[in-house]
Amino acid sequence: MNETRRALLAALADGSVPGPTLAERLGVSRAAVWKQVDALREEGFEIESGDDGYRLVGVPEYGAAALEFGLDAPYAVEYHDRVASTNDCARELAEEGASDIVVVADEQTGGRGRLARRWTAPKGGIWASLLVRPRRPPAEIPLYTLAAAVAVARASHEVGVDARIKWPNDVLVVDASGRERKLAGILTEMEGEADRVSWLVVGTGVNANVDADDLPPGATSLRAEVGDVDRRAFLQRMLETFHELTSDGANLDRILDAWREHAATLGRRVRVETPGGVIEGDAVDVQFPGSLVVRTDDGEERVVHAGDCEHLRPA
Amino acid sequence: MNETRRALLAALADGSVPGPTLAERLGVSRAAVWKQVDALREEGFEIESGDDGYRLVGVPEYGAAALEFGLDAPYAVEYHDRVASTNDCARELAEEGASDIVVVADEQTGGRGRLARRWTAPKGGIWASLLVRPRRPPAEIPLYTLAAAVAVARASHEVGVDARIKWPNDVLVVDASGRERKLAGILTEMEGEADRVSWLVVGTGVNANVDADDLPPGATSLRAEVGDVDRRAFLQRMLETFHELTSDGANLDRILDAWREHAATLGRRVRVETPGGVIEGDAVDVQFPGSLVVRTDDGEERVVHAGDCEHLRPA
Repeated sequence: MNETRRALLAALADGSVPGPTLAERLGVSRAAVWKQVDALREEGFEIESGDDGYRLVGVPEYGAAALEFGLDAPYAVEYHDRVASTNDCARELAEEGASDIVVVADEQTGGRGRLARRWTAPKGGIWASLLVRPRRPPAEIPLYTLAAAVAVARASHEVGVDARIKWPNDVLVVDASGRERKLAGILTEMEGEADRVSWLVVGTGVNANVDADDLPPGATSLRAEVGDVDRRAFLQRMLETFHELTSDGANLDRILDAWREHAATLGRRVRVETPGGVIEGDAVDVQFPGSLVVRTDDGEERVVHAGDCEHLRPA
Repeated sequence: MNETRRALLAALADGSVPGPTLAERLGVSRAAVWKQVDALREEGFEIESGDDGYRLVGVPEYGAAALEFGLDAPYAVEYHDRVASTNDCARELAEEGASDIVVVADEQTGGRGRLARRWTAPKGGIWASLLVRPRRPPAEIPLYTLAAAVAVARASHEVGVDARIKWPNDVLVVDASGRERKLAGILTEMEGEADRVSWLVVGTGVNANVDADDLPPGATSLRAEVGDVDRRAFLQRMLETFHELTSDGANLDRILDAWREHAATLGRRVRVETPGGVIEGDAVDVQFPGSLVVRTDDGEERVVHAGDCEHLRPA
C-alpha cells in the first residue's frame, strides 16, 4: 500500500472528511484523492461520498490493505491468495534486504513445519510469516518463538478458545477428557552471526476457518472449536502482541511470564527427546532464553534447550 | 582430492611401496597408480621412485592436498590462492548442501569481520572458513566460536606464542607491559531453525606469516612474534582441536574448560557494550553457552550473552 493511500485511510477512519480537506491534509491534488479513493474501492474498501465528504463504511475481509488498516504494529503486509510457503517468501524478502514485513497467504501448497516436516495449510487458515531484524544474539531467538505462541494463545482467547502452549511452541486445545489437539504451529528460521541475528522469520500457522477433516489427525481448528472467526482481527491481534512482547525496548523476560500464563506443559509429566538423549520428569518452569526446566525422578533439575516434548499421563 | 589419490598418499605415508603392491591395495591398474603419482607431483608432493617402489619424501607447503594429507579431522579442504571472502565461499557451499569442508585462501580481498567490519587479510595469513552442520540449537553456537578461539590459542602455543582469548573470541598477544595486540579473529555465521542449526560457518583469520605493518593498528602476527610458521601444521592443529572439542559425541562443557585455560578476560576489569546497555565490572567466569559473568560494583553478577568487551586497566 503506498503512503498516500495509507494516509487517506487513516484520515477516513475518523469519520466523514470533505475532499478538499483530504487533499490539503495529504498534500496532494483533489484529483489525486479521487484516484486513491478509487484504488481503495478496488481493494474492497467501501467508501461513500456524500454531502459532508468521503466516509469509510466497510473494510475488506482479508488481504494486504485490510490487514495494514488499523494494525497497531509497524509491519507492512504482503498478501498472496496462494503460495508454496510463506516462510520461503519471507526468506526471499530477507535476502533482498527487507524487514518488518509479514507475508500472508490464504493457502500454502508446500507449507513447512519444524525440521522439514510437512505442514498442511488449506484455504481459510491464517498462514503468516513475519520478517524482522532484532539486534539480538541467536541465543535469544527461542524467546521470539515463545512470543509467537503467546500471540496465538491470546488471540485465540479473545475468540473464546482456551488455547494452551506445549513447550516450546505448539498451540493446543485440550478437551474435557484431557485430549490435546493441535491448533497452531510455529516455524522460526534465522540467519546471523554468533552474536547477532541478521534476519529472523517467524512463521505461524493457525488452523482458522478450515474443517478439521482437512487437517492431519490430532489437529483442530478455530472453526471446529467456535465457528469461523474474523481472520483480519485475529492476525492483527497476533502481530500486535508479538510486537508488544518483542519490540527493541521491551524487557524480553516478560515473554516468559506471558508464556507461563498460557502454558499447557508446566506441571505436567513430560518426555523430551533432546539431541543429547531422552529426559523424563516433571516440567517445573521455563527459563531464559526459553529453556524447559524438568525435575527428574532422582530430584535433579535438568535444563532442556531444545527437543521434541511429549506430555505424559500422570502415572 | 579424489579418493584414489587420497588412498595412495595414505599408503605412501608408511614408507616405500612397490608399484604393483600399490595397484593391488588401491584396486586400480599400475598405469592408474602412475597417473595418480604424476598428479600428486604436480600438486607439489615429492615422490621418489626407486628399486623398492615409490616413496613420499616431501609434502607441499600449503594447499588443499597438503592440508588434507595427515589431517586427523574429517574435513575436506577447498583451497584458493585469492578469494574475496572465505566465509562467503563457505556460505555458497552451504547453500549447495555441502558440509565438513574448510575453505582456505592465501589471501582475501574482501575479508569480513564481525558486524560487517572489514578484515585485512593479506597473503601469508591463515584464512579459513569451516562449514559444518551440528545437530544443535542456535543457542549453543557461541560455544563453537569459543572452540575456534581455543583452537587458535593451542596452535599458537605450539609455535611458542602465548596467545590469550579476549571474550568472546579475539585471540591476543599480551606483551610484558600489558599491551594487547590482536593475533586472530573469528566470524561465525549460521542459518537454522529456532531449535536446530542448518549450517554453521566458522571463519578464522590468523595473522600468520604477514608483516605487522600490513595489518591495522593494534594487530600483531605470528611472524612478528616468533618468525614464520608452518601454516599447514598450524591450520591442521586448529582443525583437529576444533573437531575434538565439538564433534557430536563431545561434551560441549569441555569447551568452556578449555576456554578458561586460555582466557585473557577472566579476572580482568571489563566494560561490555551489550544490546541492553553498558555493563562494567570484574569478569569472573564464562558459562554455558559462552556467556560472560561480570560482577558489578554493587556485587551483583550479570550474565552477558553478547557484546563488545573492553579490558580496562585496574583502577
